[in-house]
Amino acid sequence: MSKTFTATNPATGQAVGNPITEHSFEEVSAAIAAAEKIKAKFAATTPTQRAALLNAIADSIESEKEALAQISHLETALPMARVTGEVMRTVIQIRAFAELVKTGGHLLPIIDLADPNFQPVARPDLRKSQQPLGVVSIFAASNFPLAFSVAGGDSASALAAGCPVVVKAHPSHPNTCQVVYEAVTKAITAQGLPKEIFTLVQGVNPEITHWLAKDPLITAIGFTGSGLVGKLLIKLAQERPVPIPVFAEMGSLNPVFFTPTALVEKADELAKAAMDSALLGSGQFCTKPGIIVVPNDASGDKFIAQVQSYFSEQKVGPLLNKGIATRFIEAITSISKAKGVKVLTGVNNPDGYGVTPSIFVVDWADVKNHDDLLEEHFGPTSVIIRAPFDQYLAVAKAMSGQLASAIHAGNDEKLPELVSQLTQKAGRVIWNGFPTSVSVTAAQNHGGQWPASSSHTTSVGLDSLFRFVRPVVYQNFPDNQLPAELQNANPYAIERVVNGVRSNKAIN
Amino acid sequence: MSKTFTATNPATGQAVGNPITEHSFEEVSAAIAAAEKIKAKFAATTPTQRAALLNAIADSIESEKEALAQISHLETALPMARVTGEVMRTVIQIRAFAELVKTGGHLLPIIDLADPNFQPVARPDLRKSQQPLGVVSIFAASNFPLAFSVAGGDSASALAAGCPVVVKAHPSHPNTCQVVYEAVTKAITAQGLPKEIFTLVQGVNPEITHWLAKDPLITAIGFTGSGLVGKLLIKLAQERPVPIPVFAEMGSLNPVFFTPTALVEKADELAKAAMDSALLGSGQFCTKPGIIVVPNDASGDKFIAQVQSYFSEQKVGPLLNKGIATRFIEAITSISKAKGVKVLTGVNNPDGYGVTPSIFVVDWADVKNHDDLLEEHFGPTSVIIRAPFDQYLAVAKAMSGQLASAIHAGNDEKLPELVSQLTQKAGRVIWNGFPTSVSVTAAQNHGGQWPASSSHTTSVGLDSLFRFVRPVVYQNFPDNQLPAELQNANPYAIERVVNGVRSNKAIN
Repeated sequence: MSKTFTATNPATGQAVGNPITEHSFEEVSAAIAAAEKIKAKFAATTPTQRAALLNAIADSIESEKEALAQISHLETALPMARVTGEVMRTVIQIRAFAELVKTGGHLLPIIDLADPNFQPVARPDLRKSQQPLGVVSIFAASNFPLAFSVAGGDSASALAAGCPVVVKAHPSHPNTCQVVYEAVTKAITAQGLPKEIFTLVQGVNPEITHWLAKDPLITAIGFTGSGLVGKLLIKLAQERPVPIPVFAEMGSLNPVFFTPTALVEKADELAKAAMDSALLGSGQFCTKPGIIVVPNDASGDKFIAQVQSYFSEQKVGPLLNKGIATRFIEAITSISKAKGVKVLTGVNNPDGYGVTPSIFVVDWADVKNHDDLLEEHFGPTSVIIRAPFDQYLAVAKAMSGQLASAIHAGNDEKLPELVSQLTQKAGRVIWNGFPTSVSVTAAQNHGGQWPASSSHTTSVGLDSLFRFVRPVVYQNFPDNQLPAELQNANPYAIERVVNGVRSNKAIN
Repeated sequence: MSKTFTATNPATGQAVGNPITEHSFEEVSAAIAAAEKIKAKFAATTPTQRAALLNAIADSIESEKEALAQISHLETALPMARVTGEVMRTVIQIRAFAELVKTGGHLLPIIDLADPNFQPVARPDLRKSQQPLGVVSIFAASNFPLAFSVAGGDSASALAAGCPVVVKAHPSHPNTCQVVYEAVTKAITAQGLPKEIFTLVQGVNPEITHWLAKDPLITAIGFTGSGLVGKLLIKLAQERPVPIPVFAEMGSLNPVFFTPTALVEKADELAKAAMDSALLGSGQFCTKPGIIVVPNDASGDKFIAQVQSYFSEQKVGPLLNKGIATRFIEAITSISKAKGVKVLTGVNNPDGYGVTPSIFVVDWADVKNHDDLLEEHFGPTSVIIRAPFDQYLAVAKAMSGQLASAIHAGNDEKLPELVSQLTQKAGRVIWNGFPTSVSVTAAQNHGGQWPASSSHTTSVGLDSLFRFVRPVVYQNFPDNQLPAELQNANPYAIERVVNGVRSNKAIN
């Protein structure tokens, strides 16, 4: 008999939704094997077909907008406005990949025609394009029940690349996952494609992670979540007879630096904005400003005073699940006891997995006494570090890899060394802004040095597609046996680089 | 007192060149630390400056052409024509990177201007470019004393990316390494840049590999060589507190499939060409056809008969060093004893590290009796597998990842399934040709699935540069604090993607 589990409403601690059936090892293996069987068919879809599929998936998810907002609100306790917006982000980012794929932008064809005079030796005809890796396994994140979940950025980019996807649902929002899965499957079959392109795996059994990472037919893993699970996946992937890449986004502290000049100009406004950013989504963003650096002078005092008065009135929604709430309370309790740490508290939320927001203030000199201060803590907390302005560079240097980092400076203030240092650690550096809110666009980069990310890739934006492809070059092939994107006639009418020149013309 | 070692001429077994001083741990650490200190200065070089440096390095190496050919011939026993050609390949591939860098092709700037109407939320100004990783460590290969050695493709691509390079010389050709190093350093200082951009580490001490892989300032590793050392580097890199990428090209079998139709047309010509490819460079190419698949019918018999008569007259130059020669003889001895394996031998070379070329012929049904048959053996040997044509797909499926694979087919013969299967394993698939000879060009791909390569990247051609950069996005930055390639004025006058459109214009 199959085992089942039930989701919990974090606002009440009560069960929500239907009993969810756990997938067994046999079911997971069978799903992966079935995906492997149809991968060539999916890989062979034309840019037009694949774009149509992505748009159909987006439309199908959008048609469930109200249902998805409702159930994800119940499963995550995130506000209705937030989850409604997140449905649309999910839909919009799938459509962005459709636009990219429609123009063949996923294929990157490079053609170097045969050249008998090429140096040092004659060059054969070489035609390269990017081809999908094969079946990939995606792990849904807890904190974005839609945009980083079943049909979130990782899945969308893998599908756009032409890879069948096996997604592990996050057990905190399994009903949301199920609705998205059904919407995606409906779109796939309506497009005349095999439903095995996309499979959902449900369960609370931690072994499922091992099954997915170890299956010999899985070619890559996309993961957004904790460093603990991310590192486990990397270990499992490396121990395979054939290791596979793990694209893990494992969170971040996203340090925000305030210069004295910035605070002299507007300490009050910035203090409030910093707290709003830190408490957004109950502090459950991978881009939360977990470290806030302010000067240990009068401007810093003003900032702290404003934080104290503003923060004391702040209350946030319950955390996503019991585990997150428990770990948050443990971390807060532990850090509160550290030498030199002052604790500021907000308003307790007594409902369900509600907690008390807590901000720590500590001198830079005391940070070394407590390793925990430079680690990510999911939930409504940040550490305000007070440091002499001339030590900001040293503070930046002491940080590990980050997804993002921000500087608030005065008008015309220039900080080339600090900027340069932050770009060594963070994949995104922000001027006079906060790290929360990540646009899904071509120029975006959501990835940073270890341990923020496991690779130098982005998990947000169009470039995330290129995690799931690999180059293949065809040497001296007969035209009619080349993939269409490399044939002389350019049947897809896409842009290609031919002998170093971009062109969407046919080759004569 | 410093330890020294001396190179050996593989043709005589006698010492050649100067005594070479081993680098100590302290010297290696100091070189890396010195490179770290100047990395920002090097990263900040403009496209023009960096291209000028690369061209100066190429010129400086070319000016040592005769000396390099002479010493590398003595240290490797490779023919003069081969090493002379390899100097030019080395020079030409550095110049190809200069051309790429001159146009800013290494920076890939993508700019998405702020858009208040962007969906689902307003978009900030986002400007992304590729930035060098930092100090990288390159390991020179034994079998290409120039093109994959000190200033070979790995070093050239890392320098083009803007990364200071610390190269581990191959102890089989340390004098060649030294001449190249001095030529590179001369060019660097003549360009007014710090010589710490490029360091050579010499030694036979296996600990040097560990020092380089473990140094916390090393950000990536480029390696071409054996699976044994490649896997060691990957392990060391993964065990670091901050893991780093290892771009390892670890060799390959490069299976070549002959269809019955191809052999009916020209078995004799193809048999000779296959042997020439297998014996090129004494069989010491990572693209050697280590597996040759022919039908178990009359056309295959004809091919084998021609191999037997042609091969029996073949003699090749000595192997590169004692270790390679010893391992070759051990492998040949072991495989010769395997059930069902027939051995064809060429002419023994009694000089220095000379060996007897050996070809094995085995039925596909017997391959499973000897794992060694499907592993790479460096030196003048290949395995000819005889299989029914309808089992070629199964043979291809049984192969592990490959750098390259080739099919010889008849006129108008179509093999979509076999081609598709080979593209799942190999980074390059060749029609009616042989895997040896790899053009250095934009469309090239020299990399394949594990264990041929450790990542989905190429180590030959322009795209190899992108192994050594990572994306950084600047959000809402003041124009004058952006890197030049992202500033409105487009001071480098390079092509950028602005709001999805390619342009080399300034932004108003």
